[in-house]
Amino acid sequence: MKKIKVAIMGLGTVGGGTYDALTRNRDSIRSGYGVDVEVKKILDRSPDVLASRGIDTAFFARTIDEIVSDKEIGIVVETMGGLEPAGSFVLKALSAGKSVVTANKELLAKRFGELNAAAEKGKAGLYFEASCVGGVPVIRTLTESMQANRISEITGIINGTTNYILTRMSEDGLTYEAALEEAQKLGYAEADPTADVEGFDAAYKLSILASLAFHAKVPLSIVYREGITQVRPRDISAAASMGYTVKLLAVGKQNPDGSVQARVHPAFVPNSHPLASVRGAFNAVFLKGDFSDEIMLYGRGAGSYPTASAVVSDVVYCALRSAPLYPDFGKPATAAADFDSQYYISLCVTDKPGMLASVASVLGRHGISISKMQQVGAASGSADVTILTHTTGESSLRAAVAEMASTVGVGKINATVRVIK
Amino acid sequence: MKKIKVAIMGLGTVGGGTYDALTRNRDSIRSGYGVDVEVKKILDRSPDVLASRGIDTAFFARTIDEIVSDKEIGIVVETMGGLEPAGSFVLKALSAGKSVVTANKELLAKRFGELNAAAEKGKAGLYFEASCVGGVPVIRTLTESMQANRISEITGIINGTTNYILTRMSEDGLTYEAALEEAQKLGYAEADPTADVEGFDAAYKLSILASLAFHAKVPLSIVYREGITQVRPRDISAAASMGYTVKLLAVGKQNPDGSVQARVHPAFVPNSHPLASVRGAFNAVFLKGDFSDEIMLYGRGAGSYPTASAVVSDVVYCALRSAPLYPDFGKPATAAADFDSQYYISLCVTDKPGMLASVASVLGRHGISISKMQQVGAASGSADVTILTHTTGESSLRAAVAEMASTVGVGKINATVRVIK
Repeated sequence: MKKIKVAIMGLGTVGGGTYDALTRNRDSIRSGYGVDVEVKKILDRSPDVLASRGIDTAFFARTIDEIVSDKEIGIVVETMGGLEPAGSFVLKALSAGKSVVTANKELLAKRFGELNAAAEKGKAGLYFEASCVGGVPVIRTLTESMQANRISEITGIINGTTNYILTRMSEDGLTYEAALEEAQKLGYAEADPTADVEGFDAAYKLSILASLAFHAKVPLSIVYREGITQVRPRDISAAASMGYTVKLLAVGKQNPDGSVQARVHPAFVPNSHPLASVRGAFNAVFLKGDFSDEIMLYGRGAGSYPTASAVVSDVVYCALRSAPLYPDFGKPATAAADFDSQYYISLCVTDKPGMLASVASVLGRHGISISKMQQVGAASGSADVTILTHTTGESSLRAAVAEMASTVGVGKINATVRVIK
Repeated sequence: MKKIKVAIMGLGTVGGGTYDALTRNRDSIRSGYGVDVEVKKILDRSPDVLASRGIDTAFFARTIDEIVSDKEIGIVVETMGGLEPAGSFVLKALSAGKSVVTANKELLAKRFGELNAAAEKGKAGLYFEASCVGGVPVIRTLTESMQANRISEITGIINGTTNYILTRMSEDGLTYEAALEEAQKLGYAEADPTADVEGFDAAYKLSILASLAFHAKVPLSIVYREGITQVRPRDISAAASMGYTVKLLAVGKQNPDGSVQARVHPAFVPNSHPLASVRGAFNAVFLKGDFSDEIMLYGRGAGSYPTASAVVSDVVYCALRSAPLYPDFGKPATAAADFDSQYYISLCVTDKPGMLASVASVLGRHGISISKMQQVGAASGSADVTILTHTTGESSLRAAVAEMASTVGVGKINATVRVIK
């Protein structure tokens, strides 16, 4: 029986779940996969952190050096989060020849090159299934199940916090503020929710997933990012009235010329699309390959046990590999110059004859045709106009919106939201 | 660069797709995975089969011996289907030390022990992602992504033909016969549709998937099987009126005592359940682990290219492994003595007072409580009764139905369908 000893760095939500999985299911891992995985050391601020979870404080490690210098430890699990000290610790472990399993999407998205170089130099593996979409095996699917394919698209709901908030706003009419407060109370959102609600978390994950899907490093710098803080209840109602649900989507596409578009933004999703019915804290990812066609993976994208499931799957996967895995993100991607979409536009105009025509003619001048257009008068002499365009280029849309904003009689442009098919 | 040469046995729908994937995407497999996969031989009835697909007849192999004796060939792809000669050919290849990638669910479900022994003896690998649910990576997920978990349940729609027929009956009011004829015209159903419509195909897949999920060999002999030929339009309407959709489900569960239930049968699925919206020829599988919670995988469960995607993913997976994989189905499973479900029952009774009461009292005597009960009178002096029970044991239900059938005034028991939550 193969044996491997593991250190866990960071006994928080995910680290604690990982300890539980490795100890509670140690026998079934042994009998099912022929490898005995033993937790040997746990790094955290103080032994009290271990004691508070009922874990023997004999496992406690005070410094990274205690782990790095322990020749028995083969795999180091990093579940601390954040860039530092997690980054330095991971580099030390890799340099010492210890394989690392990490759940740290920010670290991977921002410093992948550095980590990978250390892994290769240290002849150690680097595994990160848990960094994206929790217990849903999207990385293993991309790397071990779709090799036959050129992948053209990855579209997903990959942040549970924002999906919870949007679900409550859509289904129960909550305001953004009320839904956020509820998510915070339930532990779905942090006290400072910026990383989730502004789309940073989804952008980190998309950078990782798109790189693996397209065999081309998709750096954060080319990931367009827009959060959900500007989504208004009336946009959600407008979407519903047209048969759509508003979701924060991560979209990666590789164009036939090899260029890549990667973007995180709210979108109108048709109710008939499987992503429309992904509710609450659940996540789902669509992958499209030239042979597989569309595959959807669905499950819990965060949380202690689902994320621990992914961490432990990497631990066992790593333990059974005879050679370490250096993930290959390939050569850098070229950012696509533009992309096509339908759009929903909401704006205020002065309530006088001819306004719809002048708005429509701005769109027409930019080659954008209109699918639906509606004007609702308001008491104050102004009216709300909502427009659903046909498919057009993002750059044309932006130029048209800029021109609209300076058109006589047009007040505020309240929203422009992409619409998927 | 690692190089591997492959033989394909059977250039039909899946074999042809496999050839296309290996040749068309050879470069992207080489650059993405560092392995050069070359098709060297193709076994089929005649060189004309190759010629008709525009493939150089120099690849043609007339006998299995030409493949087995070719020292350059490392992997043999079996896409012939059926038990023989596929079984003998696979055994010959494995015995000669060549790893086999197969899409043959019937062969695996019926002769797994024999194949696995030959693989171990020949020090060759045996890979079969393509045998279950086409391009959807359910086997890789079970074996490489859920190691942290004890899996308690696997529930899925794993046969595209029957799902297509039931979708057309549900959504467009077709009769079974008309929907089957259409499926045959579209190539979704065979001229002899028995293997699909009687649930054999789903039972083969469930035997394989449940064995992997529960680490216990689930032989076909303990898989309960019921097809869709008895599903009537009026059962589908009754389901719809109560908020359910009728699907052919494969259900595997491992009870806390380790015993396993495995069954394929039509079921009422609540419309709010994600499986209810899996339409047409699409498939989906739910897996439930103690750490991952529920994961759903969705995609095309059959067809040339999706199945080829799975075959080629196994080819690359096998080529990159330094040791061959002998799948472990574990020790034999104990069949669960009984299982619990809700049930829908439809029966005819004589249209006279007291009939509902006497039917209800039969159920009561067997400890079965009723959720809904409805009687609709018919012209001929008989009435239709539909019943939705609360959760009860299958054995109690069967005993009650048998007693009902011999109750005075009860005509035919038209249907008993399990109802899932």
